[in-house]
Amino acid sequence: MKFHRWLRMGSLLIVLGMFAAPQTLLAQEEKPFAEQKFVLQISDMDPSKQTLVLNVANNILKAYGQDQVDIEIVAFSAGLRLLFEDNSNSGRIDGLVSSGVRFFACQNTIENMTATLGEPIRINAHASSGKGGIVRIKELVDQGYTLVKP
Amino acid sequence: MKFHRWLRMGSLLIVLGMFAAPQTLLAQEEKPFAEQKFVLQISDMDPSKQTLVLNVANNILKAYGQDQVDIEIVAFSAGLRLLFEDNSNSGRIDGLVSSGVRFFACQNTIENMTATLGEPIRINAHASSGKGGIVRIKELVDQGYTLVKP
Amino acid sequence: MKFHRWLRMGSLLIVLGMFAAPQTLLAQEEKPFAEQKFVLQISDMDPSKQTLVLNVANNILKAYGQDQVDIEIVAFSAGLRLLFEDNSNSGRIDGLVSSGVRFFACQNTIENMTATLGEPIRINAHASSGKGGIVRIKELVDQGYTLVKP
Repeated sequence: MKFHRWLRMGSLLIVLGMFAAPQTLLAQEEKPFAEQKFVLQISDMDPSKQTLVLNVANNILKAYGQDQVDIEIVAFSAGLRLLFEDNSNSGRIDGLVSSGVRFFACQNTIENMTATLGEPIRINAHASSGKGGIVRIKELVDQGYTLVKP
Repeated sequence: MKFHRWLRMGSLLIVLGMFAAPQTLLAQEEKPFAEQKFVLQISDMDPSKQTLVLNVANNILKAYGQDQVDIEIVAFSAGLRLLFEDNSNSGRIDGLVSSGVRFFACQNTIENMTATLGEPIRINAHASSGKGGIVRIKELVDQGYTLVKP
Repeated sequence: MKFHRWLRMGSLLIVLGMFAAPQTLLAQEEKPFAEQKFVLQISDMDPSKQTLVLNVANNILKAYGQDQVDIEIVAFSAGLRLLFEDNSNSGRIDGLVSSGVRFFACQNTIENMTATLGEPIRINAHASSGKGGIVRIKELVDQGYTLVKP
Protein backbone atom coordinates (compact mmCIF):
# COMPACT_ATOMS: atom_id res chain seq x y z
CA MET A 1 0.00 0.00 0.00
CA LYS A 2 2.59 2.43 1.15
CA PHE A 3 4.85 1.18 -1.62
CA HIS A 4 2.12 1.81 -4.15
CA ARG A 5 1.66 5.34 -2.90
CA TRP A 6 5.39 6.01 -3.19
CA LEU A 7 5.42 4.52 -6.66
CA ARG A 8 2.58 6.75 -7.78
CA MET A 9 4.16 9.82 -6.13
CA GLY A 10 7.47 8.92 -7.76
CA SER A 11 5.92 8.61 -11.21
CA LEU A 12 4.14 11.90 -10.76
CA LEU A 13 7.38 13.63 -9.79
CA ILE A 14 9.19 12.16 -12.77
CA VAL A 15 6.42 13.33 -15.13
CA LEU A 16 6.35 16.78 -13.53
CA GLY A 17 10.13 16.88 -13.74
CA MET A 18 10.02 16.36 -17.49
CA PHE A 19 8.11 19.60 -17.84
CA ALA A 20 9.34 21.66 -14.90
CA ALA A 21 13.13 21.29 -14.92
CA PRO A 22 14.61 23.21 -17.84
CA GLN A 23 18.24 22.68 -18.86
CA THR A 24 19.21 26.04 -17.35
CA LEU A 25 17.86 25.24 -13.94
CA LEU A 26 19.74 21.95 -13.85
CA ALA A 27 22.94 23.66 -14.91
CA GLN A 28 22.52 26.23 -12.13
CA GLU A 29 22.40 23.59 -9.39
CA GLU A 30 25.34 23.38 -7.05
CA LYS A 31 27.42 20.19 -6.96
CA PRO A 32 27.98 19.44 -3.28
CA PHE A 33 30.19 16.44 -4.02
CA ALA A 34 32.46 18.05 -6.60
CA GLU A 35 36.09 17.69 -5.57
CA GLN A 36 37.21 21.08 -6.85
CA LYS A 37 35.19 24.21 -6.13
CA PHE A 38 36.00 27.60 -7.61
CA VAL A 39 34.42 31.01 -7.35
CA LEU A 40 35.80 33.27 -10.06
CA GLN A 41 35.44 37.01 -9.52
CA ILE A 42 35.07 39.63 -12.22
CA SER A 43 34.88 43.25 -11.10
CA ASP A 44 37.21 45.08 -13.51
CA MET A 45 36.18 47.36 -16.38
CA ASP A 46 38.83 45.99 -18.77
CA PRO A 47 36.97 43.91 -21.42
CA SER A 48 39.95 41.52 -21.74
CA LYS A 49 39.08 40.36 -18.21
CA GLN A 50 35.73 39.11 -19.53
CA THR A 51 37.47 36.82 -21.98
CA LEU A 52 39.97 35.81 -19.32
CA VAL A 53 37.45 34.75 -16.68
CA LEU A 54 35.66 32.60 -19.27
CA ASN A 55 38.99 31.11 -20.41
CA VAL A 56 39.89 30.25 -16.83
CA ALA A 57 36.52 28.54 -16.30
CA ASN A 58 37.13 26.57 -19.48
CA ASN A 59 40.64 25.57 -18.39
CA ILE A 60 39.26 24.35 -15.05
CA LEU A 61 36.65 22.21 -16.84
CA LYS A 62 39.30 20.72 -19.12
CA ALA A 63 41.76 20.06 -16.29
CA TYR A 64 39.43 18.26 -13.87
CA GLY A 65 36.51 17.15 -16.04
CA GLN A 66 33.05 18.66 -15.92
CA ASP A 67 31.72 16.23 -13.26
CA GLN A 68 34.54 16.87 -10.81
CA VAL A 69 34.31 20.64 -10.58
CA ASP A 70 31.87 23.26 -9.38
CA ILE A 71 32.43 26.75 -10.78
CA GLU A 72 30.52 29.94 -10.13
CA ILE A 73 31.45 33.24 -11.77
CA VAL A 74 30.44 36.23 -9.64
CA ALA A 75 30.27 39.60 -11.41
CA PHE A 76 30.08 42.96 -9.69
CA SER A 77 30.92 46.62 -10.30
CA ALA A 78 32.17 47.20 -13.86
CA GLY A 79 32.57 43.43 -14.19
CA LEU A 80 28.79 43.09 -14.39
CA ARG A 81 29.06 44.01 -18.07
CA LEU A 82 29.98 40.38 -18.73
CA LEU A 83 26.41 39.51 -17.77
CA PHE A 84 24.65 42.20 -19.81
CA GLU A 85 22.14 40.47 -22.08
CA ASP A 86 23.83 41.85 -25.20
CA ASN A 87 27.43 41.09 -24.15
CA SER A 88 29.45 39.72 -27.06
CA ASN A 89 30.46 36.69 -24.96
CA SER A 90 26.88 35.46 -24.45
CA GLY A 91 27.47 32.49 -26.77
CA ARG A 92 30.43 31.37 -24.66
CA ILE A 93 28.37 31.88 -21.50
CA ASP A 94 25.65 29.59 -22.94
CA GLY A 95 28.31 26.94 -23.58
CA LEU A 96 29.73 27.16 -20.06
CA VAL A 97 26.24 27.02 -18.53
CA SER A 98 25.58 23.80 -20.44
CA SER A 99 28.82 22.49 -18.86
CA GLY A 100 27.46 23.29 -15.39
CA VAL A 101 29.15 26.66 -14.77
CA ARG A 102 26.95 29.07 -12.79
CA PHE A 103 26.83 32.87 -13.12
CA PHE A 104 25.89 35.39 -10.44
CA ALA A 105 25.09 39.09 -10.94
CA CYS A 106 25.54 41.42 -7.95
CA GLN A 107 22.17 42.87 -6.94
CA ASN A 108 23.76 46.08 -5.61
CA THR A 109 25.46 46.72 -8.94
CA ILE A 110 22.24 46.01 -10.85
CA GLU A 111 20.40 48.54 -8.69
CA ASN A 112 23.12 51.18 -8.91
CA MET A 113 23.44 50.85 -12.69
CA THR A 114 19.66 50.94 -13.08
CA ALA A 115 19.51 54.14 -10.99
CA THR A 116 22.33 55.69 -13.03
CA LEU A 117 20.82 54.80 -16.40
CA GLY A 118 17.27 55.61 -15.38
CA GLU A 119 15.97 52.31 -16.78
CA PRO A 120 16.37 48.63 -15.83
CA ILE A 121 19.47 46.96 -17.25
CA ARG A 122 18.97 43.66 -19.05
CA ILE A 123 20.85 40.79 -17.45
CA ASN A 124 21.73 37.44 -19.04
CA ALA A 125 18.89 35.01 -18.32
CA HIS A 126 21.39 32.39 -17.08
CA ALA A 127 22.56 34.60 -14.22
CA SER A 128 21.24 34.32 -10.68
CA SER A 129 21.02 37.39 -8.46
CA GLY A 130 19.15 38.75 -5.44
CA LYS A 131 22.03 39.65 -3.14
CA GLY A 132 25.35 41.44 -3.25
CA GLY A 133 28.28 39.88 -5.11
CA ILE A 134 30.47 40.17 -2.01
CA VAL A 135 27.83 38.32 0.04
CA ARG A 136 27.61 35.55 -2.57
CA ILE A 137 31.44 35.26 -2.64
CA LYS A 138 31.53 34.95 1.16
CA GLU A 139 28.83 32.24 1.11
CA LEU A 140 30.81 30.21 -1.40
CA VAL A 141 34.17 30.68 0.35
CA ASP A 142 32.51 29.51 3.59
CA GLN A 143 31.42 26.38 1.69
CA GLY A 144 35.01 25.61 0.71
CA TYR A 145 35.22 27.30 -2.68
CA THR A 146 38.58 28.79 -3.66
CA LEU A 147 38.22 32.44 -4.67
CA VAL A 148 40.32 33.50 -7.65
CA LYS A 149 40.19 36.83 -9.47
CA PRO A 150 41.75 36.22 -12.92
CA MET B 1 46.18 47.97 51.47
CA LYS B 2 46.95 46.29 48.20
CA PHE B 3 43.25 46.37 47.35
CA HIS B 4 43.18 50.09 48.02
CA ARG B 5 46.11 50.69 45.79
CA TRP B 6 44.42 48.70 42.97
CA LEU B 7 41.22 50.63 43.49
CA ARG B 8 42.97 53.96 43.27
CA MET B 9 44.93 52.79 40.20
CA GLY B 10 41.68 51.55 38.65
CA SER B 11 39.88 54.83 39.23
CA LEU B 12 42.79 56.70 37.78
CA LEU B 13 42.74 54.52 34.66
CA ILE B 14 39.00 55.00 34.25
CA VAL B 15 39.32 58.76 34.56
CA LEU B 16 42.27 58.81 32.17
CA GLY B 17 40.28 56.59 29.81
CA MET B 18 37.47 59.13 29.65
CA PHE B 19 39.90 61.61 28.16
CA ALA B 20 42.34 59.34 26.38
CA ALA B 21 40.15 56.97 24.36
CA PRO B 22 38.90 58.84 21.31
CA GLN B 23 36.17 57.47 19.04
CA THR B 24 38.79 56.57 16.46
CA LEU B 25 40.68 54.25 18.74
CA LEU B 26 37.51 52.42 19.66
CA ALA B 27 36.55 52.09 16.04
CA GLN B 28 39.95 50.58 15.27
CA GLU B 29 39.47 47.68 17.67
CA GLU B 30 39.05 44.21 16.22
CA LYS B 31 35.80 42.33 16.80
CA PRO B 32 36.84 38.80 17.73
CA PHE B 33 33.25 37.56 17.91
CA ALA B 34 32.02 39.03 14.64
CA GLU B 35 30.52 36.31 12.47
CA GLN B 36 31.77 37.66 9.16
CA LYS B 37 35.35 38.85 8.77
CA PHE B 38 36.63 40.53 5.65
CA VAL B 39 39.99 41.96 4.65
CA LEU B 40 39.58 44.12 1.55
CA GLN B 41 42.71 44.79 -0.48
CA ILE B 42 43.42 47.90 -2.54
CA SER B 43 46.67 47.97 -4.49
CA ASP B 44 45.65 49.31 -7.91
CA MET B 45 46.35 52.76 -9.32
CA ASP B 46 42.89 53.13 -10.89
CA PRO B 47 40.96 55.72 -8.80
CA SER B 48 37.66 53.91 -9.49
CA LYS B 49 39.02 51.11 -7.29
CA GLN B 50 39.07 53.54 -4.36
CA THR B 51 35.34 54.15 -4.70
CA LEU B 52 34.75 50.45 -5.26
CA VAL B 53 36.53 49.21 -2.15
CA LEU B 54 34.55 51.71 -0.03
CA ASN B 55 31.30 50.65 -1.75
CA VAL B 56 32.05 47.00 -1.03
CA ALA B 57 32.71 47.77 2.65
CA ASN B 58 29.41 49.63 2.75
CA ASN B 59 27.54 46.75 1.11
CA ILE B 60 29.00 44.33 3.65
CA LEU B 61 27.84 46.55 6.52
CA LYS B 62 24.34 46.79 5.04
CA ALA B 63 24.11 43.05 4.33
CA TYR B 64 25.16 41.73 7.75
CA GLY B 65 24.68 44.67 10.09
CA GLN B 66 27.49 46.66 11.67
CA ASP B 67 27.72 44.49 14.79
CA GLN B 68 28.03 41.20 12.92
CA VAL B 69 30.99 42.09 10.69
CA ASP B 70 34.64 42.94 11.05
CA ILE B 71 36.16 44.73 8.06
CA GLU B 72 39.72 45.94 7.53
CA ILE B 73 40.81 47.67 4.34
CA VAL B 74 44.51 47.15 3.63
CA ALA B 75 46.12 49.56 1.17
CA PHE B 76 49.49 49.07 -0.48
CA SER B 77 51.40 50.08 -3.59
CA ALA B 78 49.45 52.60 -5.70
CA GLY B 79 46.37 51.73 -3.63
CA LEU B 80 47.86 53.66 -0.71
CA ARG B 81 46.55 56.83 -2.36
CA LEU B 82 43.16 56.01 -0.83
CA LEU B 83 44.74 56.73 2.55
CA PHE B 84 46.49 59.99 1.62
CA GLU B 85 45.34 62.66 4.03
CA ASP B 86 43.95 64.80 1.20
CA ASN B 87 42.20 61.97 -0.68
CA SER B 88 38.77 63.04 -1.93
CA ASN B 89 37.15 60.03 -0.22
CA SER B 90 38.26 61.06 3.28
CA GLY B 91 34.68 61.95 4.25
CA ARG B 92 33.49 58.45 3.32
CA ILE B 93 36.45 56.97 5.21
CA ASP B 94 35.37 58.91 8.34
CA GLY B 95 31.88 57.47 7.96
CA LEU B 96 33.11 53.90 7.61
CA VAL B 97 35.46 54.30 10.59
CA SER B 98 32.51 55.40 12.71
CA SER B 99 30.80 52.16 11.59
CA GLY B 100 33.76 50.14 12.84
CA VAL B 101 35.69 49.63 9.59
CA ARG B 102 39.48 49.68 10.08
CA PHE B 103 42.09 50.97 7.63
CA PHE B 104 45.70 49.85 7.30
CA ALA B 105 48.50 51.59 5.37
CA CYS B 106 51.45 49.46 4.21
CA GLN B 107 54.62 50.62 5.95
CA ASN B 108 56.83 49.55 3.02
CA THR B 109 54.80 51.67 0.61
CA ILE B 110 54.89 54.65 2.97
CA GLU B 111 58.69 54.41 3.16
CA ASN B 112 59.15 53.91 -0.57
CA MET B 113 56.87 56.83 -1.46
CA THR B 114 58.57 59.04 1.14
CA ALA B 115 61.98 58.16 -0.35
CA THR B 116 60.72 58.88 -3.86
CA LEU B 117 59.11 62.20 -2.96
CA GLY B 118 61.94 63.30 -0.67
CA GLU B 119 59.48 64.26 2.07
CA PRO B 120 57.12 62.35 4.39
CA ILE B 121 53.71 61.58 2.90
CA ARG B 122 50.68 62.52 4.99
CA ILE B 123 48.50 59.52 5.83
CA ASN B 124 44.87 59.57 7.00
CA ALA B 125 44.87 59.76 10.80
CA HIS B 126 42.40 56.84 10.98
CA ALA B 127 44.85 54.42 9.34
CA SER B 128 47.05 52.06 11.30
CA SER B 129 50.48 51.09 9.99
CA GLY B 130 53.86 49.82 11.17
CA LYS B 131 54.28 46.71 9.03
CA GLY B 132 53.90 45.62 5.43
CA GLY B 133 50.45 45.36 3.88
CA ILE B 134 51.15 41.78 2.81
CA VAL B 135 52.12 40.88 6.39
CA ARG B 136 48.92 42.46 7.73
CA ILE B 137 46.83 40.58 5.14
CA LYS B 138 48.47 37.29 6.15
CA GLU B 139 47.81 37.96 9.85
CA LEU B 140 44.14 38.58 9.16
CA VAL B 141 43.74 35.58 6.82
CA ASP B 142 45.32 33.40 9.52
CA GLN B 143 42.63 34.72 11.91
CA GLY B 144 39.87 33.58 9.56
CA TYR B 145 39.30 36.74 7.54
CA THR B 146 38.24 36.28 3.92
CA LEU B 147 40.52 38.23 1.57
CA VAL B 148 38.77 39.95 -1.33
CA LYS B 149 40.32 42.38 -3.80
CA PRO B 150 37.41 44.34 -5.33
CA MET C 1 73.22 -9.70 -4.49
CA LYS C 2 70.15 -7.58 -4.60
CA PHE C 3 71.77 -5.30 -2.03
CA HIS C 4 74.80 -4.91 -4.28
CA ARG C 5 72.67 -3.96 -7.20
CA TRP C 6 70.88 -1.33 -5.11
CA LEU C 7 74.19 -0.01 -3.87
CA ARG C 8 75.53 0.36 -7.37
CA MET C 9 72.27 1.95 -8.53
CA GLY C 10 72.37 4.30 -5.55
CA SER C 11 75.98 5.34 -6.23
CA LEU C 12 75.13 5.92 -9.86
CA LEU C 13 72.19 8.15 -8.89
CA ILE C 14 74.33 10.12 -6.45
CA VAL C 15 77.01 10.67 -9.08
CA LEU C 16 74.41 11.62 -11.68
CA GLY C 17 72.82 13.91 -9.14
CA MET C 18 76.07 15.79 -8.68
CA PHE C 19 75.89 16.80 -12.33
CA ALA C 20 72.15 16.87 -12.86
CA ALA C 21 70.86 18.98 -9.96
CA PRO C 22 71.62 22.59 -10.75
CA GLN C 23 71.10 25.45 -8.29
CA THR C 24 67.83 26.25 -9.99
CA LEU C 25 66.33 22.88 -9.27
CA LEU C 26 67.27 23.17 -5.61
CA ALA C 27 65.78 26.61 -5.40
CA GLN C 28 62.56 25.31 -6.96
CA GLU C 29 62.00 22.80 -4.14
CA GLU C 30 59.02 23.39 -1.89
CA LYS C 31 59.56 24.01 1.82
CA PRO C 32 56.96 21.84 3.57
CA PHE C 33 57.92 23.13 7.01
CA ALA C 34 57.90 26.85 6.21
CA GLU C 35 55.59 28.68 8.57
CA GLN C 36 54.31 31.19 6.04
CA LYS C 37 53.24 30.06 2.58
CA PHE C 38 52.25 32.46 -0.17
CA VAL C 39 51.17 32.01 -3.75
CA LEU C 40 51.35 35.34 -5.57
CA GLN C 41 49.30 35.67 -8.74
CA ILE C 42 50.17 37.82 -11.72
CA SER C 43 47.66 37.87 -14.59
CA ASP C 44 47.41 41.56 -15.51
CA MET C 45 48.85 43.26 -18.58
CA ASP C 46 49.99 46.38 -16.66
CA PRO C 47 53.83 46.25 -16.45
CA SER C 48 53.79 47.97 -13.04
CA LYS C 49 52.22 44.77 -11.70
CA GLN C 50 55.42 42.91 -12.64
CA THR C 51 57.48 45.18 -10.42
CA LEU C 52 54.83 44.99 -7.72
CA VAL C 53 54.63 41.21 -7.49
CA LEU C 54 58.44 41.05 -7.19
CA ASN C 55 58.39 43.81 -4.53
CA VAL C 56 55.77 41.91 -2.55
CA ALA C 57 57.85 38.71 -2.69
CA ASN C 58 60.84 40.72 -1.48
CA ASN C 59 58.85 42.28 1.38
CA ILE C 60 57.68 38.82 2.48
CA LEU C 61 61.28 37.55 2.52
CA LYS C 62 62.38 40.58 4.58
CA ALA C 63 59.47 40.32 7.01
CA TYR C 64 59.73 36.62 7.89
CA GLY C 65 63.24 35.65 6.86
CA GLN C 66 64.08 33.47 3.89
CA ASP C 67 63.97 30.19 5.84
CA GLN C 68 60.54 30.77 7.31
CA VAL C 69 58.64 31.41 4.09
CA ASP C 70 57.65 29.55 0.98
CA ILE C 71 56.70 31.75 -1.99
CA GLU C 72 55.59 30.75 -5.46
CA ILE C 73 54.72 33.31 -8.12
CA VAL C 74 52.19 31.95 -10.63
CA ALA C 75 51.91 33.83 -13.93
CA PHE C 76 49.10 33.43 -16.44
CA SER C 77 47.34 35.35 -19.19
CA ALA C 78 49.04 38.70 -19.88
CA GLY C 79 50.94 38.25 -16.60
CA LEU C 80 53.07 35.58 -18.27
CA ARG C 81 55.15 38.40 -19.74
CA LEU C 82 56.97 38.59 -16.41
CA LEU C 83 58.42 35.17 -17.26
CA PHE C 84 59.43 35.92 -20.85
CA GLU C 85 63.14 35.15 -21.20
CA ASP C 86 63.92 38.74 -22.23
CA ASN C 87 61.78 40.45 -19.53
CA SER C 88 63.59 43.44 -18.04
CA ASN C 89 63.06 42.05 -14.52
CA SER C 90 65.03 38.84 -15.17
CA GLY C 91 67.87 40.01 -12.93
CA ARG C 92 65.49 40.47 -10.02
CA ILE C 93 63.92 37.08 -10.77
CA ASP C 94 67.40 35.49 -10.53
CA GLY C 95 67.88 37.15 -7.15
CA LEU C 96 64.54 35.93 -5.81
CA VAL C 97 65.17 32.39 -7.09
CA SER C 98 68.45 32.36 -5.17
CA SER C 99 66.39 33.31 -2.09
CA GLY C 100 64.15 30.30 -2.65
CA VAL C 101 61.22 31.94 -4.47
CA ARG C 102 59.67 29.69 -7.13
CA PHE C 103 58.10 30.78 -10.43
CA PHE C 104 55.38 29.00 -12.39
CA ALA C 105 54.32 29.68 -15.99
CA CYS C 106 50.79 28.66 -17.01
CA GLN C 107 50.97 25.95 -19.69
CA ASN C 108 47.66 27.03 -21.26
CA THR C 109 48.94 30.57 -21.72
CA ILE C 110 52.23 29.33 -23.18
CA GLU C 111 50.32 27.24 -25.72
CA ASN C 112 47.86 30.01 -26.61
CA MET C 113 50.62 32.60 -27.03
CA THR C 114 52.68 30.17 -29.11
CA ALA C 115 49.67 29.52 -31.35
CA THR C 116 49.03 33.25 -31.71
CA LEU C 117 52.65 34.13 -32.50
CA GLY C 118 53.22 31.11 -34.74
CA GLU C 119 56.46 30.28 -32.94
CA PRO C 120 57.40 29.01 -29.45
CA ILE C 121 57.74 31.73 -26.83
CA ARG C 122 60.92 31.70 -24.76
CA ILE C 123 60.25 31.31 -21.04
CA ASN C 124 62.62 32.12 -18.16
CA ALA C 125 64.66 29.00 -17.40
CA HIS C 126 63.85 29.32 -13.69
CA ALA C 127 60.12 28.87 -14.27
CA SER C 128 58.32 25.55 -13.90
CA SER C 129 55.32 24.73 -16.06
CA GLY C 130 53.37 21.76 -17.42
CA LYS C 131 49.88 22.56 -16.20
CA GLY C 132 47.47 25.47 -16.05
CA GLY C 133 48.17 28.39 -13.72
CA ILE C 134 44.73 28.02 -12.16
CA VAL C 135 45.40 24.33 -11.46
CA ARG C 136 48.75 25.17 -9.86
CA ILE C 137 47.11 27.89 -7.71
CA LYS C 138 44.46 25.42 -6.53
CA GLU C 139 47.13 22.82 -5.65
CA LEU C 140 48.98 25.35 -3.53
CA VAL C 141 45.86 26.74 -1.83
CA ASP C 142 44.89 23.16 -0.95
CA GLN C 143 48.33 22.82 0.68
CA GLY C 144 47.67 25.85 2.89
CA TYR C 145 49.19 28.62 0.79
CA THR C 146 47.56 32.05 1.04
CA LEU C 147 46.69 33.38 -2.42
CA VAL C 148 47.32 37.09 -2.93
CA LYS C 149 47.07 39.00 -6.18
CA PRO C 150 49.12 42.21 -5.69
